[in-house]
Amino acid sequence: MTTFGSITAQLTEQAIELPSWAFGNSGTRFKVFSTPGTPRTIQEKIADAAQVHDYTGLAPKVALHIPWDKVDDYSALRDFAGERGLALGTVNSNTFQDDAYKFGSLTHTDAAVRQKAIDHHFECIEIMHATGSADLKIWLADGTNYPGQGDIRGRQDRLADSLGAIYTRLGENQRLVLEYKFFEPAFYHTDVPDWGTSYAQVAALGDRALVCLDTGHHAPGTNIEFIVAQLLRLGKLGSFDFNSRFYADDDLIVGAADPFQLFRILYEVIRGGGFGPDSTVAFMLDQCHNVEDKIPGQIRSVLNVQEMTARALLVDREALTAAQESGDVLGANGLLMDAFYTDVRPALAAWRESRGLAADPMAAYAASGYQQQIAADRVGGTQAGWGA
Amino acid sequence: MTTFGSITAQLTEQAIELPSWAFGNSGTRFKVFSTPGTPRTIQEKIADAAQVHDYTGLAPKVALHIPWDKVDDYSALRDFAGERGLALGTVNSNTFQDDAYKFGSLTHTDAAVRQKAIDHHFECIEIMHATGSADLKIWLADGTNYPGQGDIRGRQDRLADSLGAIYTRLGENQRLVLEYKFFEPAFYHTDVPDWGTSYAQVAALGDRALVCLDTGHHAPGTNIEFIVAQLLRLGKLGSFDFNSRFYADDDLIVGAADPFQLFRILYEVIRGGGFGPDSTVAFMLDQCHNVEDKIPGQIRSVLNVQEMTARALLVDREALTAAQESGDVLGANGLLMDAFYTDVRPALAAWRESRGLAADPMAAYAASGYQQQIAADRVGGTQAGWGA
Amino acid sequence: MTTFGSITAQLTEQAIELPSWAFGNSGTRFKVFSTPGTPRTIQEKIADAAQVHDYTGLAPKVALHIPWDKVDDYSALRDFAGERGLALGTVNSNTFQDDAYKFGSLTHTDAAVRQKAIDHHFECIEIMHATGSADLKIWLADGTNYPGQGDIRGRQDRLADSLGAIYTRLGENQRLVLEYKFFEPAFYHTDVPDWGTSYAQVAALGDRALVCLDTGHHAPGTNIEFIVAQLLRLGKLGSFDFNSRFYADDDLIVGAADPFQLFRILYEVIRGGGFGPDSTVAFMLDQCHNVEDKIPGQIRSVLNVQEMTARALLVDREALTAAQESGDVLGANGLLMDAFYTDVRPALAAWRESRGLAADPMAAYAASGYQQQIAADRVGGTQAGWGA
Amino acid sequence: MTTFGSITAQLTEQAIELPSWAFGNSGTRFKVFSTPGTPRTIQEKIADAAQVHDYTGLAPKVALHIPWDKVDDYSALRDFAGERGLALGTVNSNTFQDDAYKFGSLTHTDAAVRQKAIDHHFECIEIMHATGSADLKIWLADGTNYPGQGDIRGRQDRLADSLGAIYTRLGENQRLVLEYKFFEPAFYHTDVPDWGTSYAQVAALGDRALVCLDTGHHAPGTNIEFIVAQLLRLGKLGSFDFNSRFYADDDLIVGAADPFQLFRILYEVIRGGGFGPDSTVAFMLDQCHNVEDKIPGQIRSVLNVQEMTARALLVDREALTAAQESGDVLGANGLLMDAFYTDVRPALAAWRESRGLAADPMAAYAASGYQQQIAADRVGGTQAGWGA
Repeated sequence: MTTFGSITAQLTEQAIELPSWAFGNSGTRFKVFSTPGTPRTIQEKIADAAQVHDYTGLAPKVALHIPWDKVDDYSALRDFAGERGLALGTVNSNTFQDDAYKFGSLTHTDAAVRQKAIDHHFECIEIMHATGSADLKIWLADGTNYPGQGDIRGRQDRLADSLGAIYTRLGENQRLVLEYKFFEPAFYHTDVPDWGTSYAQVAALGDRALVCLDTGHHAPGTNIEFIVAQLLRLGKLGSFDFNSRFYADDDLIVGAADPFQLFRILYEVIRGGGFGPDSTVAFMLDQCHNVEDKIPGQIRSVLNVQEMTARALLVDREALTAAQESGDVLGANGLLMDAFYTDVRPALAAWRESRGLAADPMAAYAASGYQQQIAADRVGGTQAGWGA
Repeated sequence: MTTFGSITAQLTEQAIELPSWAFGNSGTRFKVFSTPGTPRTIQEKIADAAQVHDYTGLAPKVALHIPWDKVDDYSALRDFAGERGLALGTVNSNTFQDDAYKFGSLTHTDAAVRQKAIDHHFECIEIMHATGSADLKIWLADGTNYPGQGDIRGRQDRLADSLGAIYTRLGENQRLVLEYKFFEPAFYHTDVPDWGTSYAQVAALGDRALVCLDTGHHAPGTNIEFIVAQLLRLGKLGSFDFNSRFYADDDLIVGAADPFQLFRILYEVIRGGGFGPDSTVAFMLDQCHNVEDKIPGQIRSVLNVQEMTARALLVDREALTAAQESGDVLGANGLLMDAFYTDVRPALAAWRESRGLAADPMAAYAASGYQQQIAADRVGGTQAGWGA
Repeated sequence: MTTFGSITAQLTEQAIELPSWAFGNSGTRFKVFSTPGTPRTIQEKIADAAQVHDYTGLAPKVALHIPWDKVDDYSALRDFAGERGLALGTVNSNTFQDDAYKFGSLTHTDAAVRQKAIDHHFECIEIMHATGSADLKIWLADGTNYPGQGDIRGRQDRLADSLGAIYTRLGENQRLVLEYKFFEPAFYHTDVPDWGTSYAQVAALGDRALVCLDTGHHAPGTNIEFIVAQLLRLGKLGSFDFNSRFYADDDLIVGAADPFQLFRILYEVIRGGGFGPDSTVAFMLDQCHNVEDKIPGQIRSVLNVQEMTARALLVDREALTAAQESGDVLGANGLLMDAFYTDVRPALAAWRESRGLAADPMAAYAASGYQQQIAADRVGGTQAGWGA
Repeated sequence: MTTFGSITAQLTEQAIELPSWAFGNSGTRFKVFSTPGTPRTIQEKIADAAQVHDYTGLAPKVALHIPWDKVDDYSALRDFAGERGLALGTVNSNTFQDDAYKFGSLTHTDAAVRQKAIDHHFECIEIMHATGSADLKIWLADGTNYPGQGDIRGRQDRLADSLGAIYTRLGENQRLVLEYKFFEPAFYHTDVPDWGTSYAQVAALGDRALVCLDTGHHAPGTNIEFIVAQLLRLGKLGSFDFNSRFYADDDLIVGAADPFQLFRILYEVIRGGGFGPDSTVAFMLDQCHNVEDKIPGQIRSVLNVQEMTARALLVDREALTAAQESGDVLGANGLLMDAFYTDVRPALAAWRESRGLAADPMAAYAASGYQQQIAADRVGGTQAGWGA
């Protein structure tokens, strides 16, 4: 097997974007639990995100969600983040919380509603210019709940038109990434339900339109690493939204539900050229810490990605190819499992320490008193959540 | 095939409980859309429910949800409903919206939290005495999001203890029905995930503890009519929560997603003795009208149940048995499909009219002006929703 | 609603291909039951298929499977079919029953195995020239059972190369349709698991390469009619393999498991221009009659498709569009359901009779004595099955 | 965390039954690949099983399948196995490969067919007396493919009667374990589809009737460890059939598809008292080595179970309980993951060596030449498979 020493250079390149909304409250349709210390502003979210990066060295960017993170002065926000060692990352649009979008946004039959949704994306692009963000991420909640409610085909055509208008507005160094989702909040059909649809739509737009793969947005049993391999092959994998799931879009901590699946995904990322300095694939978390603490939840998450990346890098690819080509099923599988079962945590702790980071980021954060401090400080105001 | 004339007596016996919360706002974790005319009080919910019964003759009861429908004087509420031709039905408890229940209610490791949840059920039983309700329905949101978060086995034992305490408090003519749910709001495990668990728990309690089957609470591919047949065979089918789903617990209009499944379920209900004057099975809706109008949504729902019941009653059971016993697969299947494909709507319309009801309840309600009236009248106040 | 009279001209255009293998024995890995009268030769299969067409007027073509239906003289076979009122349809290749393909065929790492599989398709193309078949259908069993067993990405690239070689060999009026399948016989990954993969592969080949949609080859919960609409929109829906399923690739009679789904699929076919004289979409059955009689199983199947097509044609599309555009969720859904719930069987029986066909094809076939005749005649020999 | 040294005594107690059929050929409905060296007789299967035990010390029993493993003299077979260090284990009945069972066996409407199936189980019980087997395992293929084909409720009642007849015949120290399966080979309904049905049926029989849990027989998303915990709590977990799956009943090597799930299952086994000298739970493999070598496939499987058992034993249960009770979600989850991520393989290798076993059983078997020897020796005859 490959040695740990030989992969540290690659590990150094790893960077994972944190979603600003992971630091706010979230929950289910049944209940959103609030917790002491939850940020009230995007600045407080960024301060929390900085904690994650301080302890792990893995999370140098924070993704924004508009309008939840709207501010008057995005340059100031960029500076604010910069002072804390962070850059502002992907800008996420929102077309699911305005009453106008009850029956669709970019797909709506009413041209005025579509234009409203397009204009919102124009605004996001403006923000991107100010924040220096490279990616505009579009997740559409558009869909229907009942057969017949909408014209599936017509909606697809309108989606293509709307995306075209948005794409044209992108700056030269900006990209559009289109997320797909199997279901929810729509229950009969969603307008971008699978990678095929996202791929067909972005392929029609141009080179700077790509697919965003959210690991929680698939049908039961879907082989996600296959999609990763395919999109890399087609040159259309733009970014990841990492999380994990047992059932639906559970938005649990990445790697928590099926660590072996995360390993396989990262192996295909690496094998397909999606990792490292020559790759433009963006890695982001998209999670909900409904019952666990948010900052350590994010720390745990980026560590999970790092640990699995290390394991995936350890695969002896030369030996694996030989086993595959000789039809040695158990041998090939064994080579993959060898890497997966390797406990990389001690080596990572030592390496982390050698770089001036905490050997055990979870313990170091817990010992820092930050959580108690924000719980004491952040009194009054409205805790951030999905509402805005 | 059986003739329509021969089944009308049985149709007359049909009664479906409406959930009070179906008339309030509901939605997903992403958005709850509000609509003009939404009730602000339980009295307004009852008034709306009365509309459904007035046009269909199918919905003589309204189920309550505590604390959402708490009032000072339940006798007065009972009278209020009675004046509108309705009785108060199943009382539904709620142990998922209090901060104390973040890590469980009846299953919590902390005895004080368990007692709080037990006391809530004692309160519900008191309300049942005042409202004349027969059934206490328990749906537990208890569960965990991460492996290791809770002790699955210990929680089950505590659940048994808590249910025992509640069961003992029931009045002589009262029943406890325990609902099961595959997942949501918990994402790793739920404490009552399947009919087997609900059955094992209620069997340990006694004769007046039964299973509640919510048609939307199963794993993909589950044969629900089999569970219906099994629970009737075991004498433990207490009640239904009707709705339909494409993916998870979508809570769509019953029969909307898979009408043939609803037909098969009702066929097993009838075949197993769960329908008619000798049965104690309670039929309830449990739905969310997120994007459609609520009152016509409920009208559509009870009509769907009625239409499928009529089709299921039309099955020529004698011929079916003969085909089954002779190994005539296509013949047996054909007999079932004959009934399913029969368009019972004209006969039902005529029969409805003969009983002084609207031939077309959807059209009659739309023409009545009620929707416009409540939209105009119900100004101010807080629209009812899941929050309370 | 549209009247039945106005759709009969469209119904006249309907033609469904029957798979030759549906008349042979099939089963599961646990058991293949044999039945008296099962064909021993392709000629006997064709004779049986002619029965289906004789009683329904719906099935003028028989699809072949190579090598199961290999003969020395395909022109003679074509004449044989022609004399029975049938044409020979799609040619289906087979790269899953030769020991050489244990680890792949068109995707194999060994160039010699790939060439063998390519040559098999060349042979199929030769057969197509002789039979007058238009479509070469490729369903690949290629895949792996264990993570690491194969190089997912490399296999995809080799697949593209192999398909390119085959495509180049096609005659001018011939098409290649590439089927996808979620799983089975491979259990970890399949090389063409979803419509997106099939689409990406055929798009790279050219205009005469299209996607084949088998209704049983999707993940649980997949909205198949959406895929239909999307592929029609992209101009890449080549053909259907009709069947139905409750769980996996059950290959049950089309419409048997979820009739409403079949209706929705056919509605999108019609709405998207996939039905009628201007469409090139091919409609085929692909089923296994494991426990039911095969000929009446096929009759039942084509009738199911016809009945659902009639219902789908009855949808009042103008009214539906109006309801959709006005946000009338229940109204729009109601318009669709009105058509679905209409019992078209009496009108179809009358119309069938007016065309000189059996009013009740199932009864007419049963009364014909054909089944008894073949049971008596077909003694000795080897009953056809999947083995060859 | 618990130390490895403290768990070795428990590991010593581990014993896993091997299924005789795992050494024969298996496959899918599409193809069964044969391999050189495949056993032709039950004696050769036992010889192969002895290899697995020789290298691992984990597999002292071989389960039989009747009629596949029928012999004239079971005492002699018992001696044959004993000479190779093995005992004969669970006897598995077969009511799915006789034409009489096309429409059911223990559930059939025809009393003569039911009696035939009951008699087959009587024969199995006789064999158990001769072989010294403790468990009679019943997996029923009974079910239907089409709605209406059978009377679901009536079949359940007949099943109860048939099982009662079989149960009565059991010897004093014999047990009946009833397996459940979600689907396949039946596609609409199976007569024992879930643990609830198996539990209800065996609970009606008596103390020596228990549930068999096959890890591959559940709906997508099912939390299997919950079922383990529940059945142990109810005192009704009789045995395991271990394997793994991505989609349906894939019968892959246990732990291959989702190692973390296997860990969670074994953790609940241990926590619930199902492991060790005081437990009567039987652990068996039930797998199909369709494309990989069979003997090393079995070696890999028992090692997977051992490695995951070791990890599960390493969980610091005291600390876990404390974290659970304090609501420390991330802490509790972290304690579980710590054990899962621990690489126990070096310690197990050393411990194995200390007991005179191969440090690396896979390598030792490969180096032994046994595979080459049987490939050379076993020429002619009929390779064992599912056919007999």
